[in-house]
Formats: sequence, structure tokens, C-alpha cells
Amino acid sequence: MQLQRFWCRAKNPDVRISLPVVCFVWQIAMIILFGVFVRYDEESDAHWSEHKREKNITSDIENDFYYRYPSFQDVHVMIFVGFGFLMTFLKRYSFGGVGFNFLIAAFGLQWALLMQGWFHALDPADGQIKIGIENIINADFCVAGCLIAYGALLGKVSPVQLMVLTLFGIPLFAVEEYIILHVLHVRDAGGSMVIHTFGAYYGLTISWILYRPKLDQSKRLNGSGYHSDVFAMIGTLFLWMFWPSFNSAISDHGDGQHRAAINTYLALASSVLTTFAISSLSAKRGKLDMVHIQNATLAGGVAMGTAAEFMITPYGSLIVGFCCGIISTFGYLVITPFMEKYMKIQDTCGVHNLHAMPGVLGAVVGAITAATASESVYGHEGLVNTFDFKGKYAERTPATQGGFQAAGLCVALAFGIVGGAIVGFILRLPVWGDPSDDNCFDDEVYWEVPEDEESIPPILEYNSHMVGKYADRM
Amino acid sequence: MQLQRFWCRAKNPDVRISLPVVCFVWQIAMIILFGVFVRYDEESDAHWSEHKREKNITSDIENDFYYRYPSFQDVHVMIFVGFGFLMTFLKRYSFGGVGFNFLIAAFGLQWALLMQGWFHALDPADGQIKIGIENIINADFCVAGCLIAYGALLGKVSPVQLMVLTLFGIPLFAVEEYIILHVLHVRDAGGSMVIHTFGAYYGLTISWILYRPKLDQSKRLNGSGYHSDVFAMIGTLFLWMFWPSFNSAISDHGDGQHRAAINTYLALASSVLTTFAISSLSAKRGKLDMVHIQNATLAGGVAMGTAAEFMITPYGSLIVGFCCGIISTFGYLVITPFMEKYMKIQDTCGVHNLHAMPGVLGAVVGAITAATASESVYGHEGLVNTFDFKGKYAERTPATQGGFQAAGLCVALAFGIVGGAIVGFILRLPVWGDPSDDNCFDDEVYWEVPEDEESIPPILEYNSHMVGKYADRM
Amino acid sequence: MQLQRFWCRAKNPDVRISLPVVCFVWQIAMIILFGVFVRYDEESDAHWSEHKREKNITSDIENDFYYRYPSFQDVHVMIFVGFGFLMTFLKRYSFGGVGFNFLIAAFGLQWALLMQGWFHALDPADGQIKIGIENIINADFCVAGCLIAYGALLGKVSPVQLMVLTLFGIPLFAVEEYIILHVLHVRDAGGSMVIHTFGAYYGLTISWILYRPKLDQSKRLNGSGYHSDVFAMIGTLFLWMFWPSFNSAISDHGDGQHRAAINTYLALASSVLTTFAISSLSAKRGKLDMVHIQNATLAGGVAMGTAAEFMITPYGSLIVGFCCGIISTFGYLVITPFMEKYMKIQDTCGVHNLHAMPGVLGAVVGAITAATASESVYGHEGLVNTFDFKGKYAERTPATQGGFQAAGLCVALAFGIVGGAIVGFILRLPVWGDPSDDNCFDDEVYWEVPEDEESIPPILEYNSHMVGKYADRM
Repeated sequence: MQLQRFWCRAKNPDVRISLPVVCFVWQIAMIILFGVFVRYDEESDAHWSEHKREKNITSDIENDFYYRYPSFQDVHVMIFVGFGFLMTFLKRYSFGGVGFNFLIAAFGLQWALLMQGWFHALDPADGQIKIGIENIINADFCVAGCLIAYGALLGKVSPVQLMVLTLFGIPLFAVEEYIILHVLHVRDAGGSMVIHTFGAYYGLTISWILYRPKLDQSKRLNGSGYHSDVFAMIGTLFLWMFWPSFNSAISDHGDGQHRAAINTYLALASSVLTTFAISSLSAKRGKLDMVHIQNATLAGGVAMGTAAEFMITPYGSLIVGFCCGIISTFGYLVITPFMEKYMKIQDTCGVHNLHAMPGVLGAVVGAITAATASESVYGHEGLVNTFDFKGKYAERTPATQGGFQAAGLCVALAFGIVGGAIVGFILRLPVWGDPSDDNCFDDEVYWEVPEDEESIPPILEYNSHMVGKYADRM
Repeated sequence: MQLQRFWCRAKNPDVRISLPVVCFVWQIAMIILFGVFVRYDEESDAHWSEHKREKNITSDIENDFYYRYPSFQDVHVMIFVGFGFLMTFLKRYSFGGVGFNFLIAAFGLQWALLMQGWFHALDPADGQIKIGIENIINADFCVAGCLIAYGALLGKVSPVQLMVLTLFGIPLFAVEEYIILHVLHVRDAGGSMVIHTFGAYYGLTISWILYRPKLDQSKRLNGSGYHSDVFAMIGTLFLWMFWPSFNSAISDHGDGQHRAAINTYLALASSVLTTFAISSLSAKRGKLDMVHIQNATLAGGVAMGTAAEFMITPYGSLIVGFCCGIISTFGYLVITPFMEKYMKIQDTCGVHNLHAMPGVLGAVVGAITAATASESVYGHEGLVNTFDFKGKYAERTPATQGGFQAAGLCVALAFGIVGGAIVGFILRLPVWGDPSDDNCFDDEVYWEVPEDEESIPPILEYNSHMVGKYADRM
Repeated sequence: MQLQRFWCRAKNPDVRISLPVVCFVWQIAMIILFGVFVRYDEESDAHWSEHKREKNITSDIENDFYYRYPSFQDVHVMIFVGFGFLMTFLKRYSFGGVGFNFLIAAFGLQWALLMQGWFHALDPADGQIKIGIENIINADFCVAGCLIAYGALLGKVSPVQLMVLTLFGIPLFAVEEYIILHVLHVRDAGGSMVIHTFGAYYGLTISWILYRPKLDQSKRLNGSGYHSDVFAMIGTLFLWMFWPSFNSAISDHGDGQHRAAINTYLALASSVLTTFAISSLSAKRGKLDMVHIQNATLAGGVAMGTAAEFMITPYGSLIVGFCCGIISTFGYLVITPFMEKYMKIQDTCGVHNLHAMPGVLGAVVGAITAATASESVYGHEGLVNTFDFKGKYAERTPATQGGFQAAGLCVALAFGIVGGAIVGFILRLPVWGDPSDDNCFDDEVYWEVPEDEESIPPILEYNSHMVGKYADRM
């Protein structure tokens, strides 16, 4: 009885204590942990000139910074403007979409530097994490997993819940990534499995557990407006344009980065055409739906996350994009409504269509491409470099690699679903300040929202003493 | 009589069959053609490490990817966000502006890789097109020609017509480019002739043939809104900021790229000041017009397309920008209304002012700069490198080069006008689903447009069963 | 009496003569001065291939262009989209925010190339300024100082006043920079002192002198709207994402750029969390304020401007960001209203909170970090390279350097305040076309503003002859 009352008490979306506490405590924890564990690596440390001499590096341009910084900045734009603006499409949740995305990404990248550092970048000599450009790209990648999860929950959770989702999501990601990339020695430079599959199922499972049967009380706000749809296109286009950088950011220097960028570029172009086709085909008089254009056009990039650095061939990339545009748009038309009605999964942004299905497809494509790789196509050196068949993996064959790639997908799925279930139950605790069912998708709950432009008082009134909200801003 | 009825039947903008068919068939054709013809070049192929050894290349950083990828991404942003958002300025055609731009660019870049490949990148050894970073930059350039043409037609054509415009525009571009750059051995790294002059006259000629005498029936929608003007500024600024990358993206490694970026940067800055000056001078009380600021400020970049990589000197660049800002703004004030009234050319975005006139001027500036080049200014090697006076062109003098540059302009004009005339007649066939005169500039025709934010039903109604469009999105 | 009438005559915001005259005359002056003084440097000149041979440079990739161009483009985006869109937050001053920012930046960068060139890049051999990529980055930096000053004045000044502000601001900046960087040999690669402290106090002093006691007559417009707040987030995010490029753009090749980027990345992330915390803590029900999120999240980048290239350690960066988020948000809550009420400083964008306080803090942090530098942390070579202890500074110790760093801050403050006072008095002359007190923050004064989307005439009227403003645009 007591317990019943605890679980079902009325929602109180006041986060005045909880949000500041969470932000302060976690940021202070970051500072302490960074103080103990994190230092510069040999390429960002002032000892670089000595390191250069020792390793016979002839020029500063060989610093990894110059290989990867342009890609890093593109990835950074995808995380903050891409994901952020993609989530501004709701007519009255644009602040929350771009703002909370900003908050959790800023927290997540610090936490990811630590968690990924412990697993991948620990210097055995002194037990410290040495960071450089590749680490901050990986931290951005890690954050992407949590932002994808946010997409499924957009408008239905409080910022505190999102911080908790990130707090648990980052370590789950780091462990999953460690198992897939290091234990199984799987290749996944653009993260079809590691980022997209994991992130999407993590978010969908949480959404399933947080199911709100009365969510249609907020139906009036769960839709886009004319301008919010244009804002969302900013996010779409920056994601679409920079996805070649995403998939090539941490692949091998030289041909690896070059090929990954080209393959992704092609797959994305192909997705656009099939998305327009299916969207038009599905509506009366062939009218296009902005939701499809904003999302399904990106599916080709997701599905190239694993195979982009392989010799999948240009037409292979086009085929992947072709299929993904179809599958993803079809998902928005059929699967999302089905999932909501019959499976009790409310997926605000349709991450199942944009990340889950294309991610799984990308993993399968990657496994097949790896399994069919051969020295005649790659050359001996090329094969060794591309799949990193070195050291204790020197004897691994492409066919075996294909099997391990498939195993990697299972790990990503398992971590997403099991992790999401656990975190979902934690997020159901009625202490996180989530909105009531009739207040979802509404910025008024967590933001000071300005009155609309339309309500500018006429000029006659300017002499009266306004005590409104704008007074403070002057 | 039958024919009469065929040509004049009422417009039916239903594209439910035609758009999906066009998208599917053409995308499948791309896949087949890529399968037969397109492979990676030696810098994006897994054999790169062997190639490196053969050519004595000491470092991966020498891969062309690292010279050009940052510029490529900037160009990519110009194509999709730059052109796309520049065309969102109409108050109710923002979806069409940014969305159809997205569609035809995604198709066009694939088609351009093929067409340009056949003309410029065919490997004689195996008859295949080998692609790398420079090819995808060139594909983006090629697409720009068609997007410029779209600017003249914005709001008056269907997406199917735009696909047809692109289908023909890309090969026209590729042939024109082949004649100008290879047959005439003209230098045009930023495409004043090849891209801007061609694209603008191609679009204007089509617009002339598709002239709508009763277009003022849509006059209520043929204008901007406050927010749509701010959206358009996103496009303007990304074009403006990244134009130095556009003009330097495929110019020579080293000083060529360096100088092209600096010259373009200066010309653009100069254009801004004269645009503001003329815009203010022309209006009552000196009020500025957003149309001028959004467009004429870019004219300096167009006009530096040919000469940017030459030793035009910093002050030469400023002079070019100075003139272009004036000419272009003047065009918006005087020439566009004149062309519409007396020449029956309806030019929605004013591409005549932004691309045609500055493009022609840029070609002339380029010809003069080339003709006056000398070894005292360039140095012997510099002159040879800049104008590529090698092989069978080793004996060409700067003066001769100037003449060929001028000939290049004529080729671009001819292709634009003749090509536009032919394609214009094809687009007049009443089967492409274009809107009626009173439905132009209206997203409602081809898009599911959300109801406005202002019409959010009051909270009282949320329990009633809404069967509206938002229900599906939940 | 006559004088009294001169100073107090009614405002007339007609700039039809003054703005075009200023733009034309100053642009022509630029052309002449560039003609006399500005040439390409050895890396952007066609003699590069000879220069390469002389200096034994083996590859074009060693051209400074490839080290700095990606960072340059990021900085360029910050100047035009970052600052521009950050200033669109007012509900009816978005045109002025982004448009006048565009104008003065385009003028300022030309003027800065000259002024900075005379002080820093004069070739003693021929008395000319030789420009390359580093110069145009520095010109963008110089412009940033004036744009910060604009932030304090947003909505209250005419474009002519802004041009005057820039005309004087650039030389003040160049002299101040010369004294700080060259005379005092201070390190300030990201400009905490040189750019932010100077720019902010320059603007605040001008605002103090231009104090408008009756500004509350415009109170109805001095606030944001829902969409204008989302537009401003575009500016915020591009500033936030690209700040690592800002602070690393001109620091040393290799580890210097690498470390500066990482440190700035971390400080910015940390600022976000404390900004959200304080913003939420300060409002009823924990509601977040967009003004804080748009601005205070950036404070960490400002404060890392000096120390980013030093070995401040990753946790040191986090601590700086932590403090700045708190101080800056606190400034918006308490100090800005205090300054307006008691100190008669009206600071529209709150530059005191975003630039002045974090800038001063950044200078102090830089001085301390420099003073505590040691060979054990930097290595001998690292210390010499980082602080440039070469030539006549070879004997300077870190402790002395710390003292000079602190002296640099005083110079920046002095130039900002004294320069601002002088320019403020010039701007009070009643000839510059500034708006009256009840017309501030209103685009109607200087722009042709389209009627709102909401006022689209119903379709019934389309046959009547409209003679409205849109007619010209068709």
C-alpha cells in the first residue's frame, strides 16, 4: 500500500534541487577523477618535440592532430548541432530538444573520456589515461549512443532522468565497445553496432519500461510546426553532410579514411532518393512528409558505419543506401505506429527506424563484406591493414572475421536491451521530476518560455510599468 | 485541336506515381552504371600502401585526402545548407526550397560522378572510372550548376521537373566542362564560367520558356516572412564563409590553394560593403532590403571563380568584389523587374544578378588576369604551374591563354542557353505535375504541411479524440 | 544654447546618405591602401615552388595553409554565424543582429589586415605587408573584438555608428595587441586579454557613455521570442563547438595546437554543467533560462584563451570551465541588472558576463599557469617553444613571464576603457542616425521588414491588384 503510493504519486516536474545537485556533484566528480587519472598523450604533451626526435618523425604535420582534427570538428558539429537541431522538430519542445542534448552531451563526453580511457587508453607505465585527438573523437562517439537513446524519449523525461541515462549509458557503451572492438577484435569504425544499434535499443527499452498509456493527453503538442520543421532540417543536413567524417574519423590513415568518406557519401545520396520515393508513394496526391525527409535520408550513413572502410565498392555503397532509405521510411509509416499500439514502445523521434534497423543492417553488411574479403581485392598489405590482422590476430581469416563481426552485433543488442531494462527501472523511480502525461512535449515545464512574438503589446502601452519577464533582461 | 488540348489541359500537381518512379528507376540505373564503371582510385583503394612504396611517397599525409578533405566538406555544406537555406526565404516555400534542393543534389552528385568520370577520370587501362576525393568535389561542383538553375525556377516547378532538369543538366555540364577545361585548356578552378555562367543561363532560359503570364495569382506567397528571411541568412552566411574553400578546393597544392582562399576572402568582404551601400541608397530612409544582403554579398565569390588562383593581387580582389556588389544589387533593383516585365523571364531568386552577371564578369577578369601574367610576377615555375603550361601546352603564352579564357566564356553561354532551350521545351510537356499559377510558391502542393503553432488547440480539448495528422506521428 | 540644441535635437535614424557614403569611401580607401601596401607572402605567392627549394621543404603539405586552414574556417564560422546568430535572440532585431554583424565584420577584417600588418607583418625589405593564412585568422580575431563591443550596444545604435566603432576599434586593437604580444612578449593565443577583455570593456564603456535613461520605452521589444531563441542557439552552438579551433588556430604547430584544442574542449564542457545548475537553481520550479544557456556555456572558452596552449592539465581546464559557468550565469542574474540600475551601463547581450569577467579570469589563470611552468613538466625544449623563450627573451624565467602576463591584462583593460571613452564621445555626436529611445531593438528602423506570415491575404483576394512590397520581388 505504501509502496503503491510511492510508485503512483502525482508527478512533480520541479527540478530546482535535483538538477543543480546532479550537475554540480557530477562535475566535481569529473574534476577529481580527471585530476587523478587524465594526462596529455605524447602528441599533445609539451614533450612532443623530444618524442618526435626519438621516433624520427620529421615534421609536425605527422602529429595525429592534422590527420583527424577536421573530422573531429565535423563529428562535434553532428553531436551538438546535428542531433540537437534534429530534435527541435516538435512545435513546442525545441528548447528541450537542443538544450538537453547540449547538457547531456557536455557531461557525457567528460565521462566517456574516463570510461573509454580506462578500457582503451590506460598507460600501463603509470596507470593514467593519456588523451589526444582520437580520444576526444571517441568520446563524441560514445555520447552519440546516449543522444540516440534520448531520441526515443524526447519530450517525456526530465533533464535529471537524461543525466541518469547518460551516467549509466556511457559505462555500458564503454564495456560493450571494449568487448566488441578488443575482445572480439571486430572492426566498426563508424559504429553501426557499437553506437547505433546499442544506442537505439538502449533508448527503446527504456521507453518501453517508461510506457505512458495516457500519452495522448499531450497529443496536441506531439507534432511539428512549420518553422520547427525547418529548424530540424538544419540538424538533418549537418548530420547528412558530415556523416562521411563520422565514419572516417578514426579509420586508418591514408586509404582507410579516404575510402570510408567516399563510401558514406555515396550511401547517403542513395538513401535520399528512395526516401523521397517511398514518402511520396505513401501519401494522397504524393505529398512528401517532412518526418521522413528529416530522418530516413540519414539511414545510409548509419548502415555504412561498419563497412565504410572496407572495399565494399562504390556500387555496394549505393545498394546499402538504397535499401536503407526504403526500410527506414517504411518504418516510420508502419512499424512505429505498430510498436506504439501493440508493443507499448513510444518512440518520439523514430530511432528504431533511423538507428536500430539500419544499424543492424549495417552490422550484417559489415560481416558479409568482411567474410568475403580477399587478397585479390585488398592486396596482402591492404587486407592486413584494413582488418588489423596483426599480432595475435595474424592468423585470422576473413571468413572467421565475418563470424566475429556477427557476434559483435549480438553483444551490442544484448547490452542495449539488458542495459536499457536496468536503467529503465531506475528511471521509473518517482523522484526524477518527469512531466505528467498532459505536459509532455512542452517546454513550459522546464524552461522560461518567452511570450510569442505575436503578443508584442502595442506601442501605446510602452509607458506603463511592465513587471513582466522581459524586465530582467534589459 | 487534340494537340491544343494536350498542351493546355489543367495542371495536376499530383506526383504520387511520377516522383517515386523517377526516383526508383534513376537510382537503380545509378547502381547498375556504378557497378559496371566505378571503382576506387589508387589513393582510396586498399592497395594504397603498395602504391605508396612504388611512388616513394613517405607518409600517409601525402594522400590527396588530407589536402582536400577540409575544403570538400566546406563545399558540401555550401551545396546542401548554403544553397538549400538560401532558398528558404519564401514565407511558405521553405520545405520546397531546402527539400527539393536536397533531392536533386543527392541525385545529381551520383550522376555527375559518372558523367564527369567518363570525360575526365576514365582509366584507359580497364575502361573504368577511378574515384577519389577530387572527383567527389567535382561532383558537388557539377551539382551546383543545377541548383543555380533551380534558383530561377523556385516555387514554379514540380520535383519531377527538377529531376529532369538535373538529368539533362549534368551531362550538359560535363560536356561543357570537358570542352572548356580540356579541349580549350582553360583555367577555371572556382567555376565562374563552368558553374555559374552555365548554371544561371541554363535556368534563366528554362524559366523564359516556362513563362507564366498569370503568375501574379500567386503574388500573395511570392515574398519573404520575418523568420524565413532569418533562415535564408543561414544559407547566405555558409555560402559566404565557405566560398574561399569553393574556389580553392581543386586548385593546385601549396600556393595555389592558399592564394585562391585569400583572394576569395577579400573579394567577398568587399562585396558586402558595396551591397549595403547600394541597398541603403535605393530605399526611402535608407532602409536595407534583406534580398540584397542575402544575395549580392556573395557576388564577389562568384566573380573570383576563375581568377582566384592567379596572382590577381589582394587589391585586385577587392576591386572585383567592389564592382560585383554594386552590379548585383543594381540587378535586383532594376534588371530583375525589367526582365520580368519586358523579357518574360521570371527569376525567383534573382540568379541573373547573383550568378549570371558576376559569372560573366569573373570570366572576363580571369581572361584579363591570365593575358597579363608574366614571369616577373609569377616566376618561371610559378607561371608554368599556375596555368599548367606543360606537355602540348608548353608553348602557350599568357596572351594566348587570355584568348582561350574568353573563348571558354562563349562555350559556357552557348551550352547554358541552347541546353536550357531544349530542356525547357521538354519541361513544358504537361506530364510533370507542375503547380497551377495560383498555387505557386506554396508548400501545400507537394508537402504535408503542419498546421501552424498558433493553432495549437487549447488544453481543454486534449481528451477529445483527434483524428488529425499528428496522431500518426506519436 | 546653440550647442545644447545641437546635442539634444530629435533623433533621425535616416541613414540613406551616411551609410552609403561611409561604405563607399571606406571601401575605396581599403582598395587604395591594399594597392600600396598588401602583397602575398612567400607561402601564398606563385614563387612558392622556388621558396620550397631554397628552404629544403620537401612537400606542399608543409605549406602553413594545411596546418591552419581548417581552424581558420572554424574561426570564420564563429565570427559570422556564431556572433551573428547569437545576436538574433531579440524578437524583432534578428535582421539587425545578424546583418550588421555581417557588415562590420566584412569591413573590419580588411582594416585589420592593414593595421595588424603594419604592426606585425611588415616586410622590412620593401615596406609591404605580406599576407598568408595566419594573417587572415588574425584579422578575424581582431574583428571579434569589435563584435563583442557590438554585443553591448545591440539594438541601440545605427549601422553608421557601428562602422565608426569598428574604424576606431581595429587600430586600438592592433596597438594593444602589439604592446601585449610583442613589447611585453606575452602569450595569448586565444585572446582572453587581447580580444575578450579589450572588446568587452571597449563596448561597455561606449554603452556607458551612450546611456539612455528612457530606454524602457522600448521594453516591449527588448526580449526574445520562441523562434528567435532557437535561432540564437545556432550561434551559441557554433561558437561552442568551434572554440577549440579559435584557441588553437594560431598556436604552435604540433603539440601546441593539439593541446590548445583539447583544453578548450574540456573547459567548455565543464561550463555547460555549471551554467545549467545555476540557471535552474535561480528560478522558480527550477526552470531554465535560455539567456544563460545561450551565453554562459561559452564562458569556459573565453577563459581558456590564454592558458589553452600551456600545460594546464585536463583537470585544470575543467576547473576553469567550472568556475566560469558559475560566474557568468551569476553575472546575468545579478550583475547585469545592478550595472544597469546603479552604474548606468546598458549591456544588451551581457558581454560583461560572457567576455569581460571570463576574459579577466582567463588572463589571471594564464599568468598563474605561466608563472608555475617548469622544465620538469614541459621539458626544456617544450618550455622554450611554448613560451617562445628565444632570442632576446632566452633568459626570461616562467616567474617573470607570469608577471608580464599580468601586465598584459592591465594594458588590455586600459585600452578598452580609454579607447571606449573616446569613441563613445564621438558616437554621441547627433549625426550618426541612431534610433530614438522608443525605437530601439526594432528592425523596422533600418530594414524593410516583411509583413508576418500570419497576415497572408486569403486566397480569395489573389486577383485584385496588389501594389504591396512583394510586387517588386517577383
